[in-house]
Amino acid sequence: MGMIGGGKDAFIGAIHRHAANLDSSIELVCGALSINPEIAIDSAQALFLPAERSYLTYQEMLQKESDLPADQRMDFVTIVTPNFAHFAPAMLALEKGFHVVIEKPITFTADEAKQLKEKVEETGLLLLLTHTYSGYPMVKQARQMVQGGELGKIRKIWVEYPQGWLSQLTEREGNAQAAWRTDPKRSGKSGCMGDIGTHAAHLAEYISGLKITYLCAHLSTMVDGRALDDDGNVLLKFEGGASGVLMASQVAAGEENALKIRLYGEKGGLEWAQQEPNTLVVKWLDKPTQIYRAGTGYKNILSSYALHNSRTPGGHPEGYLEAFGNLYRNFALTLAARIDGTTPSPEALDYPSVDEGIRGMAFIDNVVKSHLSEQKWTAFEV
Amino acid sequence: MGMIGGGKDAFIGAIHRHAANLDSSIELVCGALSINPEIAIDSAQALFLPAERSYLTYQEMLQKESDLPADQRMDFVTIVTPNFAHFAPAMLALEKGFHVVIEKPITFTADEAKQLKEKVEETGLLLLLTHTYSGYPMVKQARQMVQGGELGKIRKIWVEYPQGWLSQLTEREGNAQAAWRTDPKRSGKSGCMGDIGTHAAHLAEYISGLKITYLCAHLSTMVDGRALDDDGNVLLKFEGGASGVLMASQVAAGEENALKIRLYGEKGGLEWAQQEPNTLVVKWLDKPTQIYRAGTGYKNILSSYALHNSRTPGGHPEGYLEAFGNLYRNFALTLAARIDGTTPSPEALDYPSVDEGIRGMAFIDNVVKSHLSEQKWTAFEV
Amino acid sequence: MGMIGGGKDAFIGAIHRHAANLDSSIELVCGALSINPEIAIDSAQALFLPAERSYLTYQEMLQKESDLPADQRMDFVTIVTPNFAHFAPAMLALEKGFHVVIEKPITFTADEAKQLKEKVEETGLLLLLTHTYSGYPMVKQARQMVQGGELGKIRKIWVEYPQGWLSQLTEREGNAQAAWRTDPKRSGKSGCMGDIGTHAAHLAEYISGLKITYLCAHLSTMVDGRALDDDGNVLLKFEGGASGVLMASQVAAGEENALKIRLYGEKGGLEWAQQEPNTLVVKWLDKPTQIYRAGTGYKNILSSYALHNSRTPGGHPEGYLEAFGNLYRNFALTLAARIDGTTPSPEALDYPSVDEGIRGMAFIDNVVKSHLSEQKWTAFEV
Amino acid sequence: MGMIGGGKDAFIGAIHRHAANLDSSIELVCGALSINPEIAIDSAQALFLPAERSYLTYQEMLQKESDLPADQRMDFVTIVTPNFAHFAPAMLALEKGFHVVIEKPITFTADEAKQLKEKVEETGLLLLLTHTYSGYPMVKQARQMVQGGELGKIRKIWVEYPQGWLSQLTEREGNAQAAWRTDPKRSGKSGCMGDIGTHAAHLAEYISGLKITYLCAHLSTMVDGRALDDDGNVLLKFEGGASGVLMASQVAAGEENALKIRLYGEKGGLEWAQQEPNTLVVKWLDKPTQIYRAGTGYKNILSSYALHNSRTPGGHPEGYLEAFGNLYRNFALTLAARIDGTTPSPEALDYPSVDEGIRGMAFIDNVVKSHLSEQKWTAFEV
Repeated sequence: MGMIGGGKDAFIGAIHRHAANLDSSIELVCGALSINPEIAIDSAQALFLPAERSYLTYQEMLQKESDLPADQRMDFVTIVTPNFAHFAPAMLALEKGFHVVIEKPITFTADEAKQLKEKVEETGLLLLLTHTYSGYPMVKQARQMVQGGELGKIRKIWVEYPQGWLSQLTEREGNAQAAWRTDPKRSGKSGCMGDIGTHAAHLAEYISGLKITYLCAHLSTMVDGRALDDDGNVLLKFEGGASGVLMASQVAAGEENALKIRLYGEKGGLEWAQQEPNTLVVKWLDKPTQIYRAGTGYKNILSSYALHNSRTPGGHPEGYLEAFGNLYRNFALTLAARIDGTTPSPEALDYPSVDEGIRGMAFIDNVVKSHLSEQKWTAFEV
Repeated sequence: MGMIGGGKDAFIGAIHRHAANLDSSIELVCGALSINPEIAIDSAQALFLPAERSYLTYQEMLQKESDLPADQRMDFVTIVTPNFAHFAPAMLALEKGFHVVIEKPITFTADEAKQLKEKVEETGLLLLLTHTYSGYPMVKQARQMVQGGELGKIRKIWVEYPQGWLSQLTEREGNAQAAWRTDPKRSGKSGCMGDIGTHAAHLAEYISGLKITYLCAHLSTMVDGRALDDDGNVLLKFEGGASGVLMASQVAAGEENALKIRLYGEKGGLEWAQQEPNTLVVKWLDKPTQIYRAGTGYKNILSSYALHNSRTPGGHPEGYLEAFGNLYRNFALTLAARIDGTTPSPEALDYPSVDEGIRGMAFIDNVVKSHLSEQKWTAFEV
Repeated sequence: MGMIGGGKDAFIGAIHRHAANLDSSIELVCGALSINPEIAIDSAQALFLPAERSYLTYQEMLQKESDLPADQRMDFVTIVTPNFAHFAPAMLALEKGFHVVIEKPITFTADEAKQLKEKVEETGLLLLLTHTYSGYPMVKQARQMVQGGELGKIRKIWVEYPQGWLSQLTEREGNAQAAWRTDPKRSGKSGCMGDIGTHAAHLAEYISGLKITYLCAHLSTMVDGRALDDDGNVLLKFEGGASGVLMASQVAAGEENALKIRLYGEKGGLEWAQQEPNTLVVKWLDKPTQIYRAGTGYKNILSSYALHNSRTPGGHPEGYLEAFGNLYRNFALTLAARIDGTTPSPEALDYPSVDEGIRGMAFIDNVVKSHLSEQKWTAFEV
Repeated sequence: MGMIGGGKDAFIGAIHRHAANLDSSIELVCGALSINPEIAIDSAQALFLPAERSYLTYQEMLQKESDLPADQRMDFVTIVTPNFAHFAPAMLALEKGFHVVIEKPITFTADEAKQLKEKVEETGLLLLLTHTYSGYPMVKQARQMVQGGELGKIRKIWVEYPQGWLSQLTEREGNAQAAWRTDPKRSGKSGCMGDIGTHAAHLAEYISGLKITYLCAHLSTMVDGRALDDDGNVLLKFEGGASGVLMASQVAAGEENALKIRLYGEKGGLEWAQQEPNTLVVKWLDKPTQIYRAGTGYKNILSSYALHNSRTPGGHPEGYLEAFGNLYRNFALTLAARIDGTTPSPEALDYPSVDEGIRGMAFIDNVVKSHLSEQKWTAFEV
């Protein structure tokens, strides 16, 4: 693995490294860790990268790595730069023959996402989009239960993502994370909806297997002086007639990272909350609620997808890094199968990629369009 | 207390009696308990009412009670008939000089609610509208904390009310409760929003002290064959710029009566859930979340309104009947003060009345209007 | 109902009145509410008792009530005096032909308890001992599930009762409740174990249906200057080989009234906590945990005992007063059946009485004996 | 890092590798992964170890590694064999000059533990004992709050560790984990108390800073045919007068790994549960309970020890592997400081070592001694 971005002061780069390390199957071998040469070099040293594979630009890295003999060059590249700087390195990496891991949102614009998809299809290379939350075992369990019809036809989907960390004008107080995420030039046309609303939308579509068809959005900028939305509420219609609500906020003071989803079908409902991720609450119309738990002993009851994405026995909690690690592990298993000429398992193949990236970009576009419209419903166009 | 409606097979009449009994200050002395004479008589006997004060019609009851000497007649009348039959007995009771307790929604139409308000003002009599959920001590605490500015300016209000009991076409299977609540002729122009959406809207306005100014509603009838909405999602705008969402559903399979509200201000947030009503979660931007509990030892910290509405020490849970009892107790204290010529305490005066009833009826009207509109925002008109 | 004790400043008397009122089937008709004549008279007035049935001593009350014609006198008497003053009025009431309700612990000494049992058997009158916590519907459900063998043979019982209200020397600061409960002359030979340990022991035996056979107790007085134990831990052995622990404390600072029990059998476990009493957690060896809830729609799944002891639909929480009210209601139903010459239902007959009182007194004696012993195990002798 | 034990079918070896990998600072370079040569070789290949550093015995590994040049040999060795096979490789490793990581319990007997301590002191080498649960950030927070006197003098400590996985005679059904853990020849003189009771005892002493002085134990073997205890309850006395209870069970059917501790002092209490490890509940005598959370924004409130042991922002849950990783990270930081000739931070030095190992072995000895005694209290002798 090579890494573009993710130098010393970045947040998500370190997360990617923890996640990739977890299962001993991926090694960081090179990096272009910052556009600031000093930070790039320092960061590479701190990570024990050999000096000759510590690059100053992604262009240099992609070129020099592709010049190496096939058994020495990196297998894939991870792109953890701010949103506006995803597309160019991803395209170049694919052109140079490298598989790609890319932090969400996949690109800066929907159009770029479509170009990227074309390139992926043209090259036949793999792409992992790190929608972390779909990596949790109990999210897999939820999806399998819905797909298996255990809840009957889905009627209602309700997904919420409250955070509180932007309750003040933190971006003016030296918080680098806050600064780029609230800057339209680096983050895109939406703040809160782009950053976390897309996670919520992806989770709803992933678990339900239903696509959003119409939406009605109300975005707000609650903190004076901020350039982008920091809060939003969206009514949703799904394929098949389910109704829904998506709520995302970064000014829900006192909340941490409280992504939560509830789905209700004819026979029962599901509830999953990211802050207690090893629990899936399953509610029934006519019998007691059940608490499904990750990693427990009732292996004949849990889905193979849930079991595949667990490492520890029940009651030994796995968290965010393990969910993130599951994305990397499944990507690595799929990649290894390709290298070995074998067929990856359906469980390994279950990771987000370009299609999810395109829907994420479309979600941002449609939400902003709806917000600006006086009409109630905006068709979800891709 | 006299009671109109609430015979043997009714649900809410028994609840009113439990609630009114709780504090030994109110006695049921007469009733016109059913339009079915047999049920009326049987029900009165089961409640130990004297035969001569067991009436067959509300008209008879109001007439004969008003004919009794002042110290023998009932002090007030409680109306627990289906929605369509609230207005006429309430008006007549006021005309005959009786104070009135009335189950929500206050009337069948907004216009009736306004007439009732005029009559209350004209007669100077008291009216209690039993929006039960505002009777909980921790709801009082929440309101007082918001009013006292502890959260700063409110930015976001999020209220949800999922139930699952109408997930099937229960109204066709002999469930009397389901039958009238889903029948437009008896329930009104909205099902779910009229029955429980109004509770959620009232709670949001009560705690925040902010009025809804605009709304954008999406109602659904998820169960085939049902005449009224059984599910709805509503975007809200409040005075002062807060945004909100109200979600109510009676087809959230597996849910019981899961009314819950969250408010977020500049400095922190509040969370209260009716199914664990003695707990108020208070979240802060920059310090640990606090768990406020009803009835505990820290009496200097809890609001006088919370303390006034508790009966037991901390950890001896009070529930729905006690909250309901608080409405009756406060109404009775206010009534007793009037009889005694004293001034009731502000805590006693804090119960819902005609203004809340009018806003509830307006909420139903505006939600239905918005649902039928293609425009995003509908102004909340009273 | 007549009441002995329970005047204006008492705690438990008011609780008994709320509980007895709840279901409209019991009326307070007379009282000897305090040994202080002024408080007795004031309290009676505040409760609207007729002056001629407001008595100054229990002797006077029991005599005068028994002199009244049978259809005018009270049906039973409730004794809510401090522990030391239970026995004499209870004996006299039985002698005068009145049924008795008595607050726990039943008497001051085990010997008195045995005498009382003899008197009950001799007179054939009814006695209700208000071990409140066995009145909760989910406690009934737990007992029925264990009795029905759903957990298999019980192996482990673990009951805890932490409170924090005696963390300081409150009895010296004018807290009347604290004063008598920590005074050996009024409370008995144990403080914490007598006051709350007995509730825990009763709950364990009630749900499991197993009797404690041996115990090993360690009592502490954590607050300097206190005369009785305020904390204790007890190892338990039960009939049939189950092991157990009972922990009770009144110096668990920050706890309210956190009675909780867990039982484990060969196939699964049960968990019930008084502060969230409408939930019963049922754990299984090889399948997901279930959340049983009071009052819900799955009436064919809940035990008839749980349903009988509920008033409201699922999600409308019932609490401590309702549990207390269940004791009164079952006692009243049994009494009414006797008066009517019918057979009470098994559900109505399921309330604590003299046998539970005798075991409670024996628990106190055995715990104190074990505490003073250097031997590990003390046989539980009655 | 080299590893002794931990081949393909082992549980804890894989956990150690995940944990050591997490922070990119430790690399597995050699192993003697099984006493079965085939498994040893296969396992080493699967972990990408070079063939020449895949050893068949620990003796061979320790000899050959010590023969390598200083800059090529492993820095330390991790011993993850069953309990009976800890001592010999640990002693030899220290003799050969390697630092040691050792899974708990440290040795098979208390005497071995003392010899090991002498060897550690003699060589001056580092030893990490992996009492995982003390690696959680909120456990660190708890310890710091108690040490800082925030709760006042500690009065009561209550630690519980229910598991359910040995509810049946699993050791006879091919469960390798169950087989050695219930075999006195491989596990030691206690089953449940040795395996998990020691974790509970360590946690109690670690957080409170108080040593157990007396105990009174009741052990049970609930499953017929099992050789060692699978359940136990222990009364505790601590330095300074605190009382306590330790409960551990492996037959608590339906429980996973539910280690939980509660401590109460004069001013308040703490509650931490391993299955929701990022939350620390702090209860107060006279103000609302607080929910401290790992990794949140209130960095000036959390202890430096809690912050040091976190990787992700609030609401991105860290779990068991991260806690385990903290032990390795702190050990590695201390080792790196030694190599660099610098002073490690107090936070880095805070990991369990030989003294904790000796107390763990003494706990097992004293618990078994107490269980066999008819005397109530057994002095805790080391």
